Amino acid sequence: MDRRSFLKTSALGGTAAAAASTLAAPAYAQGKQTLTMVTSWPRGFAVLDDAASYMEQMVGEMSDGQLTIEKKAPGELVGALEVFDAVSSGQADMYHSADYYFIGQHPAYAYFTAVPFGGTAQELTNWYHHGGGQELHDELGEIFNLKSLQVGNSGSQSGGWFRKEINSADDFNGLKFRMPGLGGKVLGKLGASVQNIPGGELYQALSSGAIDGLEWVGPMADERAGFQEVAKIYYTAGFHEPGSGLSSGINLDVWNELSDQNKAIMRNAAMAVTHYQLSETLANNGAALARLQAQGVKTLQFPDDVWDAFGRASAEVMDENMGDELFAKIRASFETSMKQSASWINKSDGFYVEQRTRVLGA
Amino acid sequence: MDRRSFLKTSALGGTAAAAASTLAAPAYAQGKQTLTMVTSWPRGFAVLDDAASYMEQMVGEMSDGQLTIEKKAPGELVGALEVFDAVSSGQADMYHSADYYFIGQHPAYAYFTAVPFGGTAQELTNWYHHGGGQELHDELGEIFNLKSLQVGNSGSQSGGWFRKEINSADDFNGLKFRMPGLGGKVLGKLGASVQNIPGGELYQALSSGAIDGLEWVGPMADERAGFQEVAKIYYTAGFHEPGSGLSSGINLDVWNELSDQNKAIMRNAAMAVTHYQLSETLANNGAALARLQAQGVKTLQFPDDVWDAFGRASAEVMDENMGDELFAKIRASFETSMKQSASWINKSDGFYVEQRTRVLGA
Repeated sequence: MDRRSFLKTSALGGTAAAAASTLAAPAYAQGKQTLTMVTSWPRGFAVLDDAASYMEQMVGEMSDGQLTIEKKAPGELVGALEVFDAVSSGQADMYHSADYYFIGQHPAYAYFTAVPFGGTAQELTNWYHHGGGQELHDELGEIFNLKSLQVGNSGSQSGGWFRKEINSADDFNGLKFRMPGLGGKVLGKLGASVQNIPGGELYQALSSGAIDGLEWVGPMADERAGFQEVAKIYYTAGFHEPGSGLSSGINLDVWNELSDQNKAIMRNAAMAVTHYQLSETLANNGAALARLQAQGVKTLQFPDDVWDAFGRASAEVMDENMGDELFAKIRASFETSMKQSASWINKSDGFYVEQRTRVLGA
Repeated sequence: MDRRSFLKTSALGGTAAAAASTLAAPAYAQGKQTLTMVTSWPRGFAVLDDAASYMEQMVGEMSDGQLTIEKKAPGELVGALEVFDAVSSGQADMYHSADYYFIGQHPAYAYFTAVPFGGTAQELTNWYHHGGGQELHDELGEIFNLKSLQVGNSGSQSGGWFRKEINSADDFNGLKFRMPGLGGKVLGKLGASVQNIPGGELYQALSSGAIDGLEWVGPMADERAGFQEVAKIYYTAGFHEPGSGLSSGINLDVWNELSDQNKAIMRNAAMAVTHYQLSETLANNGAALARLQAQGVKTLQFPDDVWDAFGRASAEVMDENMGDELFAKIRASFETSMKQSASWINKSDGFYVEQRTRVLGA
């Protein structure tokens, strides 16, 4: 998407509430059913809107048009960060978003996107489908009248875009930085002034100097958003989102009325989307990174003592939420699963890639 | 599955051809359609038969029973390694297997399971769906009248089961070892006497001393097969199958007659299966490994100079196949994609996991 349409969509995203007047409900015509899906992504946003679009497409083709999803970008029905409440209240049938935007509704939603020092995309998937994650997502969703699904994953997110190098944890002190979720609270502990700004408004915020830096997704999505035009320092690994799950929440009354066949199509389409979109992102990030570097972007990694500071602050943030019983239960489930996953993956994939790099010199 | 049923099914697998009399064809009744799927896995074989079963289940539920898959274990229609020819000739509608069993039909089939020093499950997926892999799989399949799909992935496979430690590459000299695909040819270069034996016959071959060692899949599948009862040394990482794709080949005439809706259901089910089954495997391998260790299994990694020898022999084996134009084309496509994938993954996931391990001491 070019910059002009990016900014135009972004402006719409900012005045979202204005458009939120009609009440959406599943439409039935000749046995056909349409679900209105509100998203947090302007149309054409790489990775994120891609996942939402694949969901729309797969459900339509597998049901032969009997069940269709009608996607609404921010501002077309509600604003980017209003999608959760809209679906919970029945104003829309479902959303596609990142659930850590909704830690204000419940802090445990962080686990269904990503948490600081949490799981890679694979580890999150292992937990979600085979370690109790799906069931806990649904238990949390019931509080808000939602059925939840994982629909996409960004892979490991970049440390972010900066105008100055980060040489010590003190460099975050006073920095105006965009980072949502619990990761943002971690940078807050280091003295940063942290904001969550929807994706559609980020380019303008960075170019105007309203913020000093930001993290968005990774090379493929970040290049499309154009951040390389206004910042030149890019940290490739981050502590905050090692594999961010994207989610759909579906109004529970709407979900319960779907046929078993349509439920199966929705559940399996969600897994197929994650498989297809994550691999698209990871297949394209390498080439996108090379193009960013060709445009003068300098890629770096945070030094060890900065990672140590991230680690200390992350432990504090996690512990602050432990008063909530459901948060504590979800945290324990996730961490048990992640440790078990990692205990094998590090000895197999991890050791293999190390040897492949050493032997092939690649 | 307990040992008794394991051996019984295994014996059936060995006398497969005897049962191959009836000619299967898609059955139509009241608009319903059934595809006969021959597999290379005895019923209940962890990871592999799991993937085949999920495919059967997902297709059935998403089509509301209009399209069903009827799974046949080895010996029920044809033998474990006869499935490719059976589908190619129209004796069965589709198979579920590992395509590197069919390098005798064409050496490039190795790329659609795994090749020595090749891609992890994620890197294979990146190539398959977004780097030209699917199209090349279909180009290869057309030679044999097949439409191909990836349906499952084992993750990074173990180095295997041994009775003696491997301290140098010379220890492979004269070793009777089971390893299929191009990996087996690599061990052949090191002097091993290499055989491909179907999974259902492996326990007996190892316990009788017909072979000195074997590689099968990974902890979850290996534990179920019971190899820990007859060998006590387990190498956790291997060079030969860093992320083995499982495949279905569908008779092309059968595929071409499926409706667009049923094709979409098959394609997306295949992706959902891979997502669901791979994460199941990786969620369970850690706990399975711990149980193997509790039964007295010693886990090791091959030393660097053995990995170097694997690397030299692998390069020779790959180069020996370069006279075939399609092999060369598929190799170039795969290697380009893998390098691009790895150039980002190593800087993001790879660096992150290293820091997480360092910071958390996990």
